[in-house]
Amino acid sequence: MSKVFVNIGLSLDGYMAPEGMTLENWDSPEYKEWGAKWGTMMSWILKQQYFRENLNFGPGGETGAVNDMLRYTMERSGANIMGMRMFEQGEVSWPDEAPFHTPVYVLTHEKREPWVRPGGTTFYFVNDGPESALEQARESAGDRDIRISGGANVIQQYLNLGVIDELEIALAPVLFGGGRRLFENLHQAMPEFCIDEVLNTPDAAHLRYVRA
Amino acid sequence: MSKVFVNIGLSLDGYMAPEGMTLENWDSPEYKEWGAKWGTMMSWILKQQYFRENLNFGPGGETGAVNDMLRYTMERSGANIMGMRMFEQGEVSWPDEAPFHTPVYVLTHEKREPWVRPGGTTFYFVNDGPESALEQARESAGDRDIRISGGANVIQQYLNLGVIDELEIALAPVLFGGGRRLFENLHQAMPEFCIDEVLNTPDAAHLRYVRA
Repeated sequence: MSKVFVNIGLSLDGYMAPEGMTLENWDSPEYKEWGAKWGTMMSWILKQQYFRENLNFGPGGETGAVNDMLRYTMERSGANIMGMRMFEQGEVSWPDEAPFHTPVYVLTHEKREPWVRPGGTTFYFVNDGPESALEQARESAGDRDIRISGGANVIQQYLNLGVIDELEIALAPVLFGGGRRLFENLHQAMPEFCIDEVLNTPDAAHLRYVRA
Repeated sequence: MSKVFVNIGLSLDGYMAPEGMTLENWDSPEYKEWGAKWGTMMSWILKQQYFRENLNFGPGGETGAVNDMLRYTMERSGANIMGMRMFEQGEVSWPDEAPFHTPVYVLTHEKREPWVRPGGTTFYFVNDGPESALEQARESAGDRDIRISGGANVIQQYLNLGVIDELEIALAPVLFGGGRRLFENLHQAMPEFCIDEVLNTPDAAHLRYVRA
């Protein structure tokens, strides 16, 4: 059966996004220096050949274990689930060929027709909650896995539902001092994880956890 | 010159202590299951030969890279600094021979005479702030290093002073869902760290950061 997984970048102090990284400040990366902080957290991925290719950043980039991990993550994904805030930020910043190449289920209260992008990505807007989105994602994904893409609030909802099988965190050595935390609003009874693999690089410690 | 370092255990969701782990509940580890959570977070250290010997837990225990790291941490420490809450919890739980074997500077508003323990540990109660405690610790430590032992609030004070040279975190694969966070109340301008070493075991990912 499909696995449900998370694969995200995190600051050492546990933030997925620095303070000030909101749609209103999207064109003002100098605001609270969110651009610099975000860039430091994501520096590992911006260097990878597979990521650069997928975002049309041009040729070149590192190949190696981290690049292989990125390719594996993309190839295993048969569907994505994300929150409205992440979608709205992406809507103004992704290339036309959005970097998912799967159905993407967007949790929102907004009613909107599916948005088909070139390259195999279609965004579906789901109004009846995270369990319904997961059910639809399972049907789309077939044998492949389901990625809970973010943001923090959506990952928290699925952690609280107890359905996350694998949690992959690229922990970057940067302190944000504020922002949107990955781990908060969690219920007391949560799935237990064990460490599956750790891949260390100077830019991030890639921590992979699987359900115990 | 002496280094100032932190070496602590942390839950995957960033807590140094689970909710309910207070002096009032010290004899009630069933309270909010803090005993079980704490035990899971610390399981890596409870197994180590050096730790067992130091706490008089009896013979046996693992020897290996993690045990060597514990010995190195103890041997490099020429002084410790801790907060009053940590001291009060230890006062009721450490053996007579308190497990520091150095001067320990306790940040507190309470006036109290030094408390000398067998085995080389003396607790000094410092009433004039973290910088004064650090100065006194530097004098005691000589060529050896200064460990900021905890709790979270004390570590935050020294992070905000910008004096932490090395940050060692044993990140255990357990979610607490609440408690005392290591990383909060941090100012925006903080020292930058880079990853120095990662030692992975099934019980914890040992992440070592040094000042960039």
